[in-house]
Amino acid sequence: MDPRVREHAEIIVDHSVDVGPDDEVLLRGHPVAEDLMIAIAELCGERGANLSVRSSSSRVDRAYRKAIDAEDISQSAVSLAGAEATDVAIAVRADANTFETSDIDPEKTSAMARVNKEIQEEIMGKRWVGTQYPAPANAQDAEMSTDAYESFVWGAINKNWAAVREHQAQMVEILDPAEEVRIRSGEETDITMSVAGNPTQNDFAERNLPGGEVFTAPVPDSVEGEVHFDKPLMAQGREVQGVRLRFENGEVVDHSAEKNETVLTAVLNTDPGASRLGELGIGMNRDIDQFTYNMLFDEKMGDTVHMALGRAYEDTVGEANERNDSSMHMDMIVDMSEDSTIEVDGEVVQRDGAFVFEDHFE
Amino acid sequence: MDPRVREHAEIIVDHSVDVGPDDEVLLRGHPVAEDLMIAIAELCGERGANLSVRSSSSRVDRAYRKAIDAEDISQSAVSLAGAEATDVAIAVRADANTFETSDIDPEKTSAMARVNKEIQEEIMGKRWVGTQYPAPANAQDAEMSTDAYESFVWGAINKNWAAVREHQAQMVEILDPAEEVRIRSGEETDITMSVAGNPTQNDFAERNLPGGEVFTAPVPDSVEGEVHFDKPLMAQGREVQGVRLRFENGEVVDHSAEKNETVLTAVLNTDPGASRLGELGIGMNRDIDQFTYNMLFDEKMGDTVHMALGRAYEDTVGEANERNDSSMHMDMIVDMSEDSTIEVDGEVVQRDGAFVFEDHFE
Repeated sequence: MDPRVREHAEIIVDHSVDVGPDDEVLLRGHPVAEDLMIAIAELCGERGANLSVRSSSSRVDRAYRKAIDAEDISQSAVSLAGAEATDVAIAVRADANTFETSDIDPEKTSAMARVNKEIQEEIMGKRWVGTQYPAPANAQDAEMSTDAYESFVWGAINKNWAAVREHQAQMVEILDPAEEVRIRSGEETDITMSVAGNPTQNDFAERNLPGGEVFTAPVPDSVEGEVHFDKPLMAQGREVQGVRLRFENGEVVDHSAEKNETVLTAVLNTDPGASRLGELGIGMNRDIDQFTYNMLFDEKMGDTVHMALGRAYEDTVGEANERNDSSMHMDMIVDMSEDSTIEVDGEVVQRDGAFVFEDHFE
Repeated sequence: MDPRVREHAEIIVDHSVDVGPDDEVLLRGHPVAEDLMIAIAELCGERGANLSVRSSSSRVDRAYRKAIDAEDISQSAVSLAGAEATDVAIAVRADANTFETSDIDPEKTSAMARVNKEIQEEIMGKRWVGTQYPAPANAQDAEMSTDAYESFVWGAINKNWAAVREHQAQMVEILDPAEEVRIRSGEETDITMSVAGNPTQNDFAERNLPGGEVFTAPVPDSVEGEVHFDKPLMAQGREVQGVRLRFENGEVVDHSAEKNETVLTAVLNTDPGASRLGELGIGMNRDIDQFTYNMLFDEKMGDTVHMALGRAYEDTVGEANERNDSSMHMDMIVDMSEDSTIEVDGEVVQRDGAFVFEDHFE
């Protein structure tokens, strides 16, 4: 077995979810991720934990979803009972074909998500982590060879997360007590928002592996200005490129996209919260040095910031502040490596990707 | 997809477990059986049932079992909760390597079976079926090409089970009211047991697919005599050959095996019920015309009988009788095609494989 798989498994089991002898562990993943699941299973055994493996093929899932009538869709009592009995949930993303469910009626998929919301919430209340295995189909999504994608994935994941935590804490210290953040990049991005009273979180690979960002929530009505998101994003199964948004009093008052603008429009019209920001994140994982069309990695890319339309995470909103609510959360990325600054309360804290606490900051 | 896979799926869903709109269905199987699982998932969707898929690789299972200390093995709360919430359980047997658990300490495998006994019993109390998918590794076990093995498996499975039921009912009529059964074969097998008060079941492919046997339970203390099981069997991932057992007052007082005797010993020591018989079965599926080292098929082979150490099925034990209990159930087979008789209450009802109600009985 590739030693990088074992290292990945150790980070999951010991760092992200800290499996111990009394834990009921639920491990889920596609059969193509077998190697990583073997390594995780071995470590769970060594820790004396109880392990349940729930591998499932997307072709089997698709066959069921395709065949069932929308009105017959109901919550799975088996999955709910299993989720309730779980202490630790590990989800390994990987597939043999990432477009396997592309011909399922989106209404049906939404209905399935709705009936299984309680199961999802049950899991989110436990210790959990989502990670990626570099299967060939996932390399294909990233437009990379499998070999190169393996190096990319394990390069971003297999690192000293304690050191990452410490490094990122410097940015948390700046952002956590801040009032106002201003982000400028090139000719087209100049946006200001209040983060006053909203806590900043340090993502050092507990629930997401890779981790590598610090993030908070803007005060919903405070966002003012324009942004050009120069990295593409996937929404509703399609690639949206060159998104431009203008905010007034926190709301998107003008929008355009160079590719698939209708998708962007549909997303903005989902519900009232969908046209306001729910997250400001700063990507700090410099081992993620290229865009791979996978938000688990893209949003943590070094020298980027991302803003999400829609739902704000509860742990990023102060008790006295309003939390932007929506049924969606769509991350969009700005490249900050050139001609860019992040200002916090009037002081430049990042210039062209370099943070004020780094040696190469000028 | 091979049309025989769809036929197999229809027999499972509609004949064996009769899936309906309100059913919670639990489908388990190795990823190599994906085609059959797709066909089953599609039918479950069409019937409007709820489906949970629990695919699991034997390599992942092995890694966990190998790593865990025997004293840390405990019942899986996740699996128990899932089993309790299940109405219908479908287990598809298939593997990528049927020797995957061959290097696990048999004591550990026995311990695992013991702690998960409650889960097993929970499933056995529901509608359930176990069947086989003809994967290449399973063909290899049978020492056949995959193509020939497919024909063998689907030949034994895809048939008119209503007609089978009627044919087998003739043997049920003989065995059900019987007091004593004596089985003789060659020089080394002469065993007598009481089946008084214990019902005989007609296996027409409800819980086992293929079906094709009639079976009952011996009264535990009544078994006397010697048996040479001349067909090999698989136990704890290993092949055990040439098992010889001697019973006194229902208990195994002497045992040997020509190959892997230590496995046999471990099985007998699992718990007190493991050294007594829990089943007497008569194989009647003549489409199973060769031994394939797979008990699901072998025990139903025409012209054989089988006896199982361990757990007796509840529906084969009369209310006034004792039910042999154990966490294991291990079938062993005697070839009855030559120099053999089954006597029921002193009358020969099968000679050299031919039943008294068949034309070729002499």
